[in-house]
Amino acid sequence: MDNISVIGMISVITAGLTIAIGSIGPALGEGRAVAQALSAIAQQPDESGTITRTLFVGLAMIESTAIYCFVVAMILIFANPFWEHVTAAAGG
Amino acid sequence: MDNISVIGMISVITAGLTIAIGSIGPALGEGRAVAQALSAIAQQPDESGTITRTLFVGLAMIESTAIYCFVVAMILIFANPFWEHVTAAAGG
Amino acid sequence: MDNISVIGMISVITAGLTIAIGSIGPALGEGRAVAQALSAIAQQPDESGTITRTLFVGLAMIESTAIYCFVVAMILIFANPFWEHVTAAAGG
Amino acid sequence: MDNISVIGMISVITAGLTIAIGSIGPALGEGRAVAQALSAIAQQPDESGTITRTLFVGLAMIESTAIYCFVVAMILIFANPFWEHVTAAAGG
Amino acid sequence: MDNISVIGMISVITAGLTIAIGSIGPALGEGRAVAQALSAIAQQPDESGTITRTLFVGLAMIESTAIYCFVVAMILIFANPFWEHVTAAAGG
Amino acid sequence: MDNISVIGMISVITAGLTIAIGSIGPALGEGRAVAQALSAIAQQPDESGTITRTLFVGLAMIESTAIYCFVVAMILIFANPFWEHVTAAAGG
Amino acid sequence: MDNISVIGMISVITAGLTIAIGSIGPALGEGRAVAQALSAIAQQPDESGTITRTLFVGLAMIESTAIYCFVVAMILIFANPFWEHVTAAAGG
Amino acid sequence: MDNISVIGMISVITAGLTIAIGSIGPALGEGRAVAQALSAIAQQPDESGTITRTLFVGLAMIESTAIYCFVVAMILIFANPFWEHVTAAAGG
Amino acid sequence: MDNISVIGMISVITAGLTIAIGSIGPALGEGRAVAQALSAIAQQPDESGTITRTLFVGLAMIESTAIYCFVVAMILIFANPFWEHVTAAAGG
Amino acid sequence: MDNISVIGMISVITAGLTIAIGSIGPALGEGRAVAQALSAIAQQPDESGTITRTLFVGLAMIESTAIYCFVVAMILIFANPFWEHVTAAAGG
Amino acid sequence: MDNISVIGMISVITAGLTIAIGSIGPALGEGRAVAQALSAIAQQPDESGTITRTLFVGLAMIESTAIYCFVVAMILIFANPFWEHVTAAAGG
Amino acid sequence: MDNISVIGMISVITAGLTIAIGSIGPALGEGRAVAQALSAIAQQPDESGTITRTLFVGLAMIESTAIYCFVVAMILIFANPFWEHVTAAAGG
Amino acid sequence: MDNISVIGMISVITAGLTIAIGSIGPALGEGRAVAQALSAIAQQPDESGTITRTLFVGLAMIESTAIYCFVVAMILIFANPFWEHVTAAAGG
Amino acid sequence: MDNISVIGMISVITAGLTIAIGSIGPALGEGRAVAQALSAIAQQPDESGTITRTLFVGLAMIESTAIYCFVVAMILIFANPFWEHVTAAAGG
Repeated sequence: MDNISVIGMISVITAGLTIAIGSIGPALGEGRAVAQALSAIAQQPDESGTITRTLFVGLAMIESTAIYCFVVAMILIFANPFWEHVTAAAGG
Repeated sequence: MDNISVIGMISVITAGLTIAIGSIGPALGEGRAVAQALSAIAQQPDESGTITRTLFVGLAMIESTAIYCFVVAMILIFANPFWEHVTAAAGG
Repeated sequence: MDNISVIGMISVITAGLTIAIGSIGPALGEGRAVAQALSAIAQQPDESGTITRTLFVGLAMIESTAIYCFVVAMILIFANPFWEHVTAAAGG
Repeated sequence: MDNISVIGMISVITAGLTIAIGSIGPALGEGRAVAQALSAIAQQPDESGTITRTLFVGLAMIESTAIYCFVVAMILIFANPFWEHVTAAAGG
Repeated sequence: MDNISVIGMISVITAGLTIAIGSIGPALGEGRAVAQALSAIAQQPDESGTITRTLFVGLAMIESTAIYCFVVAMILIFANPFWEHVTAAAGG
Repeated sequence: MDNISVIGMISVITAGLTIAIGSIGPALGEGRAVAQALSAIAQQPDESGTITRTLFVGLAMIESTAIYCFVVAMILIFANPFWEHVTAAAGG
Repeated sequence: MDNISVIGMISVITAGLTIAIGSIGPALGEGRAVAQALSAIAQQPDESGTITRTLFVGLAMIESTAIYCFVVAMILIFANPFWEHVTAAAGG
Repeated sequence: MDNISVIGMISVITAGLTIAIGSIGPALGEGRAVAQALSAIAQQPDESGTITRTLFVGLAMIESTAIYCFVVAMILIFANPFWEHVTAAAGG
Repeated sequence: MDNISVIGMISVITAGLTIAIGSIGPALGEGRAVAQALSAIAQQPDESGTITRTLFVGLAMIESTAIYCFVVAMILIFANPFWEHVTAAAGG
Repeated sequence: MDNISVIGMISVITAGLTIAIGSIGPALGEGRAVAQALSAIAQQPDESGTITRTLFVGLAMIESTAIYCFVVAMILIFANPFWEHVTAAAGG
Repeated sequence: MDNISVIGMISVITAGLTIAIGSIGPALGEGRAVAQALSAIAQQPDESGTITRTLFVGLAMIESTAIYCFVVAMILIFANPFWEHVTAAAGG
Repeated sequence: MDNISVIGMISVITAGLTIAIGSIGPALGEGRAVAQALSAIAQQPDESGTITRTLFVGLAMIESTAIYCFVVAMILIFANPFWEHVTAAAGG
Repeated sequence: MDNISVIGMISVITAGLTIAIGSIGPALGEGRAVAQALSAIAQQPDESGTITRTLFVGLAMIESTAIYCFVVAMILIFANPFWEHVTAAAGG
Repeated sequence: MDNISVIGMISVITAGLTIAIGSIGPALGEGRAVAQALSAIAQQPDESGTITRTLFVGLAMIESTAIYCFVVAMILIFANPFWEHVTAAAGG
């Protein structure tokens, strides 16, 4: 295996695993938050506005960790500096 | 194994594992949210509209993490820049 | 092992594991949602229509993650671009 | 090991593991749904018809993920395109 | 190791693991369903007929996943197409 | 290692692990069912006949998965077609 | 390593692991059943006869899975057909 | 490594692991049973005789699985037929 | 593999895994905090201001651990001193 | 590595792991029993004699599994028949 | 691989894993503390000052363990004495 | 690696892991017992003498399993018969 | 790899993992203690002084185990006797 | 790798892992005990003296298992008899 093969192979694996593993935590955390929000609305229907607003801020915070992972995966596939270096070296 | 074989092999494995692992978290999280929604409707039937609406927004947020994984898997199978590079190099 | 063997072997493994792992999350999530739906019907028989409708929408969302995995597994077995490339290369 | 051996070996392993792993989730999910159905019947005997009907729809959804796995296992044993390719290649 | 040895070895391992792993889920799921059925009978003795009938339908659904595994294990031991191919090839 | 050694070694390992792993699920499931039966008898002594009868049917269902494993283990030790093939081949 | 060494080594490992792993499930299951029996006696002292009888039947069922494992372990140590074959072959 | 070394090494490992792994289940199971017995005595001091008697029968059943493991470990250290075979063969 | 390949490969893997693993804890922790915040608002609507403020401070503290991981991942991809050393050495 | 080295190395590892793994179960089981005993005394101070006596019998049963492990570890260090055989063989 | 490659590779891996693993515990611990703080404020709004103050001291203690990890990761990347030694040796 | 190196290496690893793994169970078990003791004192302050005495006996029993591990670790470091044998053999 | 490389590599890995793994337990333990302290203050505001004081002593005890790990990690990086020996040997 | 390298490498790894793994149990156990102590003080403020005293004795017992690990780690770093032997042998 030459350098292109190695870097390419590793980038593919890492991109996939990063988003795969990185989606477990946020999905479970959001599921918990949404479930509790529904329970809270059922308990205090008059506060559904406040509850929904707080829920959305919280979901945004939790989603942000999934987005960090997605950004890293995208960088590894489409803007990978290591890949660019070795393909430039191989093509040069 | 030459480069085509390595990159192809890794892309297949990663695409499969990405969507497989990435479906565990969202499925569990959505199951929890749906279960709580049903419980909340049974507790407060008059708020079923608000509950259903909040549930769907939440499900969309949770589903988004599964879709990130599906997008990455599809990219790895049908629009894989590493695969295109090595097949172009091999065919050139 | 030549390229055909490697790509074929990996495609078989990945197709099987993808649907196997990918069925755990949805099955558990659906089991939870169905269980809660039955509990909610027992608690509020008058709302069984709303509960059943919400349940089916939720099950469809959860099932979608299993279907993503099934689609990927089928693509890997019957419409695998990597397999087609290497068999074409070997046969050409 | 030649290609026939490799593809055959992998197909056997994958078929077995696919149905073995794929039966864990549905079995647990169905167990939970059935258990809750029995509890709901004991709580609201008058709604046993609605409960049983909802239970069967839910079990069918959950069972579907097990059937996906069984289908993939059967395809790998009796209609495996990779196996047919290598045996045709070896016999040709 | 020649082909006969490899295919035979793998078939033995896979048959055993398939039924071993495949028995965990159904056994736990059935245990849960039976336990809840007993609890429901104790709570509503008058509905023991309905409960028992629903229990048996549910157990049949759950047992079906164990039977899928048993069928695959038996096929791998006594009607294994891969084994027949390699022994025919060796004996031919 | 010749074929006899490989097939024999694998058969021993698989037979042991099959029954060992296969006994975990049934033992836990039966333990749960028996525990709940005792609790149900303490709660409704008048229904001890129905409870015991349902318990025994359930235990038989659960025990069946352990027996599948035991049958496979016995077949692998005393009626193993792969072992018979290789010893016949070696002795022929 | 010759055949005797391989078969002997594997038989020792498998015999030990079979009974070791196989004792976890029954021990936990029996512990649960006994604990619940004591709780039931404390709750309904008048039914201690029925409870104890049901407990012993249940313990026998659970213990049976441990005994399957013990039987397999003993067969592997003292009546191992594979060991007898290879020692006969070596001594013949 | 000759045969003596292999069989001796494996016997030592297996003996230790058998009793080590095999002590986890019984210890936890007995701990649970004893804890529940104490709770039951505190709840129904008048039935302490029946409770203690049932406890001791149950502990004996649970301890039996630990003793199976201890017996196998002792056999492997002091009455190991495989060890005797290879030392006799080496000394013969 | 030369130094560039090794350092590049490792940097890609580590960057991906760091953010992937590092997102599990914060996502779950934030999910818990948000869920409890919603529950608290439903219980004490008058204190929603204090609750929301404390929630945001807490989320910031939890998010900080995710950001540590993101910073390390970004450093490894875009400002990696080891990568710069080996590319300088290779280009020098 | 000669025989002395192999047997000695394995004996050291096994002795340590046996007592280390073997102490987990009893310690947790005893902790549970002691905790429940204290709770029972607080609930029924008049029965502290019976409770303490039953506790000590139970602790002795649980401790016995730890002692089995300790005995095996001591045998492996100070009265190891395999070690004595190989050192006698080496020194003879 | 020469020394520079080895030390660099290991430093990158370790820095990433240290902060990744090290963020799990603090994030979960802080999530728990914050959740309980919100619950406590909802229960005793008059004590929100004391609760918030105690919460912040506790968060600082928990955060300190995350900071230990971050410090070690930063030292490994930017002030690594082992890296400096080998680059000095290589450049000398 | 000669014998001294092998035996020394293994002794160091085993000593460390023995006490490390062996401290998990006792620490958790003692934590549980102490926690329950404090709860019992708060519930029945008049019985604090009996509770404390029973607690100390129980802690001594649990600590004993930790001490078994510590003894084995110390023996392996300072009075290791295998080490003495190989150093005597090497120095003789 | 020479000695410097080996010792340096291992020291880096160990230092990182020690503090990373060692921060999980204290962070979770402190999170639990802080959470309970806040709950206790909400329950007994008049005892907040005693509670806070006991909390700080307890946090100090728990933090001490994290500090043991930090000390060992710092020693391995900055005052490692093994590193000093091999660099002295290499430079001598 | 010569003996010095092997023994040094192993000592570093073991010292780190011993204290890292060994700090998990005590930290969790102490966290539990402290949490329960705070709860007990809130429940019975008048017994805070007895509770605190019992807590400190219990913490000392739990801490002792962490200290065993710390002592072993320190011995392995600063007073390692195996290291002294091999450095003496190398220097002699």
